[in-house]
Amino acid sequence: MAEWQSTVTPTALARLLGTTPTTTPRPAYQRLATQIRTLVSQGRLPVGARLPAERELALALALSRTTVATAYETLRADGYLRSRRGSGSWTALPEGSRPPSDALHPVPPDESGRTLDLGVAALPAPQPYLGQAASRALEQLPAYAAGHGHFPTGVPVLREAVARRFTERGLPTTPDQILITTGAMGALHLARQALLSRGDRVAVEAPSYAHTLQSLQQDGARLVPVPHTWPGGPTEQPCWDTAEWQRVLRGAAPRAAFVIPDFHNPTGALVDEEQRRALLAAARTAGTTVIVDETLAELDWDTDTMPRPTAALDRAAQVVTIGSAGKILWGGLRIGWLRAQPSLIRRLANDRAFTDLGTPVLDQLIAAELLTEHLPAVRAHQHHRLRSSAYALAAALRAQLPDWQFAFPAGGLCLWLSTGPHSGSALAKAGDRQGLRLAAGARFGIDGAFEHHLRLPLTVTPADAPTAIARLAAAGPTGEDTPPPAL
Amino acid sequence: MAEWQSTVTPTALARLLGTTPTTTPRPAYQRLATQIRTLVSQGRLPVGARLPAERELALALALSRTTVATAYETLRADGYLRSRRGSGSWTALPEGSRPPSDALHPVPPDESGRTLDLGVAALPAPQPYLGQAASRALEQLPAYAAGHGHFPTGVPVLREAVARRFTERGLPTTPDQILITTGAMGALHLARQALLSRGDRVAVEAPSYAHTLQSLQQDGARLVPVPHTWPGGPTEQPCWDTAEWQRVLRGAAPRAAFVIPDFHNPTGALVDEEQRRALLAAARTAGTTVIVDETLAELDWDTDTMPRPTAALDRAAQVVTIGSAGKILWGGLRIGWLRAQPSLIRRLANDRAFTDLGTPVLDQLIAAELLTEHLPAVRAHQHHRLRSSAYALAAALRAQLPDWQFAFPAGGLCLWLSTGPHSGSALAKAGDRQGLRLAAGARFGIDGAFEHHLRLPLTVTPADAPTAIARLAAAGPTGEDTPPPAL
Repeated sequence: MAEWQSTVTPTALARLLGTTPTTTPRPAYQRLATQIRTLVSQGRLPVGARLPAERELALALALSRTTVATAYETLRADGYLRSRRGSGSWTALPEGSRPPSDALHPVPPDESGRTLDLGVAALPAPQPYLGQAASRALEQLPAYAAGHGHFPTGVPVLREAVARRFTERGLPTTPDQILITTGAMGALHLARQALLSRGDRVAVEAPSYAHTLQSLQQDGARLVPVPHTWPGGPTEQPCWDTAEWQRVLRGAAPRAAFVIPDFHNPTGALVDEEQRRALLAAARTAGTTVIVDETLAELDWDTDTMPRPTAALDRAAQVVTIGSAGKILWGGLRIGWLRAQPSLIRRLANDRAFTDLGTPVLDQLIAAELLTEHLPAVRAHQHHRLRSSAYALAAALRAQLPDWQFAFPAGGLCLWLSTGPHSGSALAKAGDRQGLRLAAGARFGIDGAFEHHLRLPLTVTPADAPTAIARLAAAGPTGEDTPPPAL
Repeated sequence: MAEWQSTVTPTALARLLGTTPTTTPRPAYQRLATQIRTLVSQGRLPVGARLPAERELALALALSRTTVATAYETLRADGYLRSRRGSGSWTALPEGSRPPSDALHPVPPDESGRTLDLGVAALPAPQPYLGQAASRALEQLPAYAAGHGHFPTGVPVLREAVARRFTERGLPTTPDQILITTGAMGALHLARQALLSRGDRVAVEAPSYAHTLQSLQQDGARLVPVPHTWPGGPTEQPCWDTAEWQRVLRGAAPRAAFVIPDFHNPTGALVDEEQRRALLAAARTAGTTVIVDETLAELDWDTDTMPRPTAALDRAAQVVTIGSAGKILWGGLRIGWLRAQPSLIRRLANDRAFTDLGTPVLDQLIAAELLTEHLPAVRAHQHHRLRSSAYALAAALRAQLPDWQFAFPAGGLCLWLSTGPHSGSALAKAGDRQGLRLAAGARFGIDGAFEHHLRLPLTVTPADAPTAIARLAAAGPTGEDTPPPAL
């Protein structure tokens, strides 16, 4: 089992450093600084990762403490490290530098023409439904425009529509259990602030959504990764390792567990009700709050039997559910929500006075209109797009890169690709030169885990899929490859 | 000069407690707990204020430490206090409780019919301009809907429109100096996270915007209040006390100064260029970043000679400017912005991956359309509304409450009212019973300062103004009055 860790352990960093080639025999501190900078630039050390204390790293690398201290000082001067008294040192990017080539941030519009962007896992809006819903929302706007437009908990029609949709999916819900947020990240941000303190242990799936891992680490949470398992082998559906979850919840009694049971990002895993029940039972015993990310739950494009929402199996009111219009409707609406006890909803609505004060009215009206009037059509539209993309990408991968393995998912937004001996970070970097923007697997892990993986979002059109995979094949092998870790 | 303080000092709390009547001779710990709970409920101790350590408060009140410890424990059990090991204890509200009667949060729609809401300082949208701009924005939406809709720095047309408006106002600006945020609070949130560390000193005007003070305190900033002065007497315009600002910046060398020089919230002060220059010079010497809140800068409804934006006088690139569409256009758009060096803009755009990931597209298009096509008409419309409201409120106050003093402002969104011997917190509470929702002055200060003030937003129609002031007159005196503090 992985250690309880939110920081890069000396051993993990030493291992990562071992995979970074050095050329000239410069002073030892300069070599170390260069290696760490390379790891950060390639995204193999995530930005915001806490590095070992100087003394510990010196010990692990058999270097003098002065060498490590001078290397850290060099990195600080170059902007690759930030330190705070008492909190240690964290990886960073220099002001003004571009994010690493495999960053999850979108490509600026002026670049997107030349590049196939497989960094961002988000779809275009479903037209003509977005336009129709926006027109209807506009007709409702004057009634809202007569007031000051502040709705800390959300516009009532959207709270009602979201509650109704939860109820349809098998989880009876009232509007006072719903907080409308600025995207799912807005919901997670409020939950993190209200429920977690610096130093709290948080159990997370390994791998998991990159921004969630980074934001939890930035908050000072101590992450406890629980790996997915592939019981049928690497080309069959993954799921939770229930025994390991039980062991972690019993042993670490984490303050919270963050899970994505519905078409997990990035593996695509769809966890069944039995596993959900087992996790909830263990969490109840441990006193652990379960934060369920349902961002992808509506993307069931290849299955007719969806499990009920996790909170529907929750008898102890210990589940906080985060949802989003971002994947099924459109990311440009920036509409998310959080479902919890009404008392927590009211508290979070107060807390957000210090962050965004509320979510724009018009986008809430549009989301309510889409959920109420167009959801079946929108689901069919988006499901068709995702299914076509998934089959086209899978066919291209089997034809052009037959040795790279993946489990074909039943829904969700990505393929999780094992790149065999090839470094995903190096592939992402090489992909950039081929006009293919990629998210390296290491972005979804802690401490350089999943270095031999890539996440392929199902955002490429079927027509572009062969080109995308051809560029991927041209990107690797790269010469920067490293052997996969021993199991 | 006030001490550098972010916490309620034992002396300040002892003084506040002295103004809270106690009736029955219960155990001392219970009396103390009840008094503190009352101060929190009335908003006289802001939620999130850090209380003195048990030992210190025991000393200040001449009680045993056990008595204070038991009182704190009682408050914790009731939800009025939260404690963290190493960070002390902070006032709170129990989960599920309504915010205090003078909270700045909007009244829920089902209550608003019965109540004149003078809690929220925000206007209805300027119609028909909002509707016209929204229709035009809708025509532009399909081009954006074809992409994933994520714009971490903002949609280019709005960045350009905001940069152009800064330039028009006398501050040459390029789009890469602009970050579009989810409201001005979104901008402040990102700036707080990036620029401040727990324990940093931050100089603030006294009084200042309540949410800013609370959010800074929640972050663990040590606030250094610098009082406004009224050199012409209480009915003439206030301004900065330049000598005091120089003394504070030299003496405390705060990490940042947060100021609202353009129609200050809540006093309405409009600071001239000479004072702006003096503050910038002192801040440069002290190494202090100046965060300028220009949320109200477009509300110049009673003056033809606006000073240039503060950043226009800044030669050292030490100013971060926060602006908003929320007051001049509409709060329901939730559009704000931050102007700074391009390097900082890029860094903040990365940081927001952990908060809201971006601001909705459609609202950005609407704001761009309003700024580009309708700004002169919108300004005239909103200025007329604010001017009418200000004159009507001032006339009603002079007629019905001639002893309560205020300086009539040249712009902005509120009157700052001295309530003489009457407790603003008690008035706000009594106002609730009269169907008048009010923001007590103490919400805009630290440690119970401005207890004898109220903020009246210019959001009441001229027709409603006499009714609002009649309800205010009926609310006080209340029997809970306390003498104003000695000068």
